[in-house]
Amino acid sequence: MVNPLDPEEFRRQGHMLIDFIADYYQDIESYKVLSQVEPGYLKKLLPESAPYYPESIETILQDVQKYIIPGITHWQSPNYFAYFPSSGSTADFLGEILSTGFNVVGFNWMSSPAATELECIVMDWLGEMLMLPKSFLFKGNGGGVLQGTTCEAILCTLAAARDQMLNRCGSEKMEKLVVYGSDQTHSALQKAAQIAGIHTKNFRAIKTSKLRNAVQADVEAGLVPLFLCATVGTTSTNAIDPIEPLCEVAKDFNMWVHVDAAYAGSACICPEFRHFIDGIEGANSFTLNAHKWFLTTLDCCCLWVKDPSALIKSLSTNPEFLRNKATDSKLVVDYKDWQITLSRRFRAMKLWLVLRSYGVANLRNFLRSHVKMAKLFEELVRNDNKFEVMAPRNFALVCFRVLPWPNDNSVANQVEYANELNKELLESINGSGNVYMSSTVVDGAYIIRCVIGATLTEERHVIRAWKVIQEHADALLSKN
Amino acid sequence: MVNPLDPEEFRRQGHMLIDFIADYYQDIESYKVLSQVEPGYLKKLLPESAPYYPESIETILQDVQKYIIPGITHWQSPNYFAYFPSSGSTADFLGEILSTGFNVVGFNWMSSPAATELECIVMDWLGEMLMLPKSFLFKGNGGGVLQGTTCEAILCTLAAARDQMLNRCGSEKMEKLVVYGSDQTHSALQKAAQIAGIHTKNFRAIKTSKLRNAVQADVEAGLVPLFLCATVGTTSTNAIDPIEPLCEVAKDFNMWVHVDAAYAGSACICPEFRHFIDGIEGANSFTLNAHKWFLTTLDCCCLWVKDPSALIKSLSTNPEFLRNKATDSKLVVDYKDWQITLSRRFRAMKLWLVLRSYGVANLRNFLRSHVKMAKLFEELVRNDNKFEVMAPRNFALVCFRVLPWPNDNSVANQVEYANELNKELLESINGSGNVYMSSTVVDGAYIIRCVIGATLTEERHVIRAWKVIQEHADALLSKN
Ligand SMILES: Cc1ncc(COP(=O)(O)O)c(C=O)c1O
Ligand SMILES: Cc1ncc(COP(=O)(O)O)c(C=O)c1O
Repeated sequence: MVNPLDPEEFRRQGHMLIDFIADYYQDIESYKVLSQVEPGYLKKLLPESAPYYPESIETILQDVQKYIIPGITHWQSPNYFAYFPSSGSTADFLGEILSTGFNVVGFNWMSSPAATELECIVMDWLGEMLMLPKSFLFKGNGGGVLQGTTCEAILCTLAAARDQMLNRCGSEKMEKLVVYGSDQTHSALQKAAQIAGIHTKNFRAIKTSKLRNAVQADVEAGLVPLFLCATVGTTSTNAIDPIEPLCEVAKDFNMWVHVDAAYAGSACICPEFRHFIDGIEGANSFTLNAHKWFLTTLDCCCLWVKDPSALIKSLSTNPEFLRNKATDSKLVVDYKDWQITLSRRFRAMKLWLVLRSYGVANLRNFLRSHVKMAKLFEELVRNDNKFEVMAPRNFALVCFRVLPWPNDNSVANQVEYANELNKELLESINGSGNVYMSSTVVDGAYIIRCVIGATLTEERHVIRAWKVIQEHADALLSKN
Repeated sequence: MVNPLDPEEFRRQGHMLIDFIADYYQDIESYKVLSQVEPGYLKKLLPESAPYYPESIETILQDVQKYIIPGITHWQSPNYFAYFPSSGSTADFLGEILSTGFNVVGFNWMSSPAATELECIVMDWLGEMLMLPKSFLFKGNGGGVLQGTTCEAILCTLAAARDQMLNRCGSEKMEKLVVYGSDQTHSALQKAAQIAGIHTKNFRAIKTSKLRNAVQADVEAGLVPLFLCATVGTTSTNAIDPIEPLCEVAKDFNMWVHVDAAYAGSACICPEFRHFIDGIEGANSFTLNAHKWFLTTLDCCCLWVKDPSALIKSLSTNPEFLRNKATDSKLVVDYKDWQITLSRRFRAMKLWLVLRSYGVANLRNFLRSHVKMAKLFEELVRNDNKFEVMAPRNFALVCFRVLPWPNDNSVANQVEYANELNKELLESINGSGNVYMSSTVVDGAYIIRCVIGATLTEERHVIRAWKVIQEHADALLSKN
């Protein structure tokens, strides 16, 4: 058996793959954005068991082309407008190559000092770009960490808050702890609460204006307010929770405040968007997903906390086999104690490459170009009186729907009819494979979401997407 | 600004990076395995802030060479024998390139069907290679999922077990739930228990032979036995918990049994090692880390469960913005409900490439070659009466220490002296940069751990490592 990491064979196959992916980007518009396969399609195409003997990379790549590509949705396509983007870039990709190539397992400082130190440095860099208060940066005794996802980051901060609180008021209060979000908070919060053992009946989804009363009522009922998650740029419509007043309520009740800016946080490196996180100094922790709108592929969630020791108290373990002088000296950060997992990838590498390859100036321009295209799309929608914009556009998400001709006097039926019509419209445009958008339901209304954010998207794609929508809407309306 | 994903620029820079990594593997033996930098070294070398203007990839790569490489520990070096390996391979690397290149966010089936379906398929393939009972495979109504790490996998199964139990006996029992491991169980269990809100005083680390009595005593004290983690191949010495008798105890008390074979599980694809997981049919869940000893880089933990619905009940959320027909049809797997995180990478790709590129035959040979080299190393240790083997060798980990000349009649002092001597020896060999090994403490004895598992390691490296140890030991013994 040839050594599976033989450098010359690695080189040969590596170059082959680079061309494969470069060609994929070249041809990406020829694929249907949304995969059109049926459940179970792949099982019919692949063998029942792993092969006993090796297969060549040429055979495997043919199979990727024939069997895998038709089954993926092309998140990197310029015609991808669904959910939120997760858009790569050349710099990110190179960072992944370096991090996979070195494959260091940076659980603590000692296991690969550069991995930890570079992470501390880029988290301070990015924190400064966002004008986070110094108290969130290492230079101000806070600090940042790269987690996989927002789900993990929220779970870690929730566990930290929980243990701090139970330490103060006794572990028998576990059942009394209450977690607050709004009805538009991402399901990450609910999931974190489930995993952290918060009683399901103590999870509150309430309108932000009603928070104080709700908390007060809970206190009067003998419960213990614990954690509040505020969102800047909600998943459905990019609504903005008012951080400052929420933090005031939280402060009065001694709650931990986490600010989730998974998507919109990236935009806050532009001075004109920074105001959306005004008041952040009152929060305990803050996250954004670089893997959404910051030219970075999965997974890369940036978490900053004011008080790392709260995380560490809750998440550290100190087994014998990891003891080392650097840790004992307390001069180093051991990131294993800042997160759920022990083993961790060298994620700072890709963020470092993105920051350096593009620079602050181009990163801002890149985000602005998406917002500009979203404005254009919004205008196109507004200029067509068959359509309606369904929520204020804060960043590069436009929420809209087609308006039905009123065909019934009952309002309930009209709502239902509009929803069905828009569902049909979305299915029809997505089924065409020409564009991919997603949907949500807010206050009973079915809404189509168009987010401009794929790295390859240019103005012409947006204009074409709009044409596709108009055509399908016309066909649908004339049919109905 | 040039498009940051321009295919031709991507191609140019991509090829450059492949050569960079291929050269790195070529030259890897010229680097000191264990990084010799001091805490804070990198801050002194990098700028205070992110650059405003872009920098070229050439400049960045020079910095990687100058500043990063000296600060990493070379986990891929053939002279790396520490902790457990995390060894890549060309196939794995290509899989990562594909998965990063496509960058699909496969939270549910719908978001990229191939990502989910390929994962189901390779998990059944690998499950069969391990001769797992059919009840752990999709074809037997169980199933497998690729998590990031064992820490996450244990947390998920623990949350599932917890919620199932609380559902049965009432949520007010939360404080009464007890989790069991041995004193050699990985800290992943303790951490999972902390995060899941298990009361710290209800975490037990007990010898496996004493399990039944301990559980019985807990029941008599009004506690609720919940979860047992058995380990096949403990982190310190590769000890094997007896799965069958442990499962019997667990069954009598209705506990969930998780079998953690993070490192050693891979070897069980060889018929001669399969017996180490005999009795697995009595467990509820099983994990191995492909990112340890299966030619796969971080992160890739394989988790199989008998009852996916228990996981799903505990971990699912169903927000509006993710609703879709495929999910409603119940014909598909939505992996977001099998794990902590929503967003997830296309990890199946790398496992698929590893399985196909090497085939079952070569994968077995590869693992056997490491075991054979470990046997050789063990023999070298045994043949030198200045050294002592400290634990039975089951796989490719050899635990040993140098024996001090008795210089003191007090036994307590002798233990202390031996520990200090071996600590000094390890520091001295690791400080040389020629090899890297790690340590543990078992029953008060400080032990040096040598694991053969880096993909590039050949017999000559093992022989040389032994020479390095002997030389350093001689120098030390003659000094003392
Ligand atoms: C506001 C918000 N929070 C959290 C998340 C979840 O992010 P992740 O998948 O990284 O956990 C999302 C994803 O869309 C989001 O929009
Ligand atoms: C037996 C065992 N379990 C669990 C782990 C933790 O694995 P991970 O880092 O994937 O969580 C290890 C790591 O060395 C291990 O040896």
